Amino acid sequence: MSVSTNPNVLSIKHMAFAVKDAKGALSAYSKFLDVPTDTAIVDYPKSKNRVALFELGGIEYQLCQSMEEGGRFDTWIKQRNAEGLHHICYAVDNIDKALDHAKAQGAELRICQACGVYGSHAHPEGFVAFLDNDAGGIEIEFMQVYTADELEKYKAVKGI
Amino acid sequence: MSVSTNPNVLSIKHMAFAVKDAKGALSAYSKFLDVPTDTAIVDYPKSKNRVALFELGGIEYQLCQSMEEGGRFDTWIKQRNAEGLHHICYAVDNIDKALDHAKAQGAELRICQACGVYGSHAHPEGFVAFLDNDAGGIEIEFMQVYTADELEKYKAVKGI
Repeated sequence: MSVSTNPNVLSIKHMAFAVKDAKGALSAYSKFLDVPTDTAIVDYPKSKNRVALFELGGIEYQLCQSMEEGGRFDTWIKQRNAEGLHHICYAVDNIDKALDHAKAQGAELRICQACGVYGSHAHPEGFVAFLDNDAGGIEIEFMQVYTADELEKYKAVKGI
Repeated sequence: MSVSTNPNVLSIKHMAFAVKDAKGALSAYSKFLDVPTDTAIVDYPKSKNRVALFELGGIEYQLCQSMEEGGRFDTWIKQRNAEGLHHICYAVDNIDKALDHAKAQGAELRICQACGVYGSHAHPEGFVAFLDNDAGGIEIEFMQVYTADELEKYKAVKGI
């Protein structure tokens, strides 16, 4: 059976890694790979995440530490007893079309734990949605990155 | 303390995911993302891996299934009771320099399970080595991709 692919997917927007300690993980990336040692580590009160964000090999990495026990990344690490890649966010040209395509192929939506919303909704950098279907163990997020006008309109939206 | 970064790292060569079933994982990537449904799944007798290899968002993905219980990817999945990103391979301009830099920062070498070798050695696409130090839970591989002459010289080297 032929299964069509999702033509709305453009690129990898970012990869989010669940880590126990953002500072320690950043240190490894700085020591062994090509990541600046002065990379900022930022606390996001809304999602209760501490995040080191940098670009490596043309890809945006987010090293995400839950600031509270039972948080999104803490739970993920405890389930596996290991840190790792939590999700890949794919940039799409049109998130509604990307979701319609995925749903037509059997996908369902997963709640956004930071916002309590299913499906496309405003985040700091764009409209995002999560699928409830992983691919080879990796959670899938879609993001329609804001235009300059949208970025201004949604600038009050905070947090990773 | 200032810690220098590794200037020999060029880009992401590939990401290798540990999956239970390469065919099933490929199906998810085809249904929900932008991966051709006719992507080949190849068995590698030397490493005993079954691999679906494709490009998505400018990055090479390898969905790797151990063909035998107790294999490299099977063991990884059982340790976590979950599939996921096994390692990221970084292309480097000079693997000896990249390893010297990493070792000067405290890195040690991990054995290549397919070849039984520590440190730089010939693989199908280039000289590779594994660090025994992960970064945020992700194993680090370095590859110095072959020149055209080296590719001819090492063409007898098989397997992923």
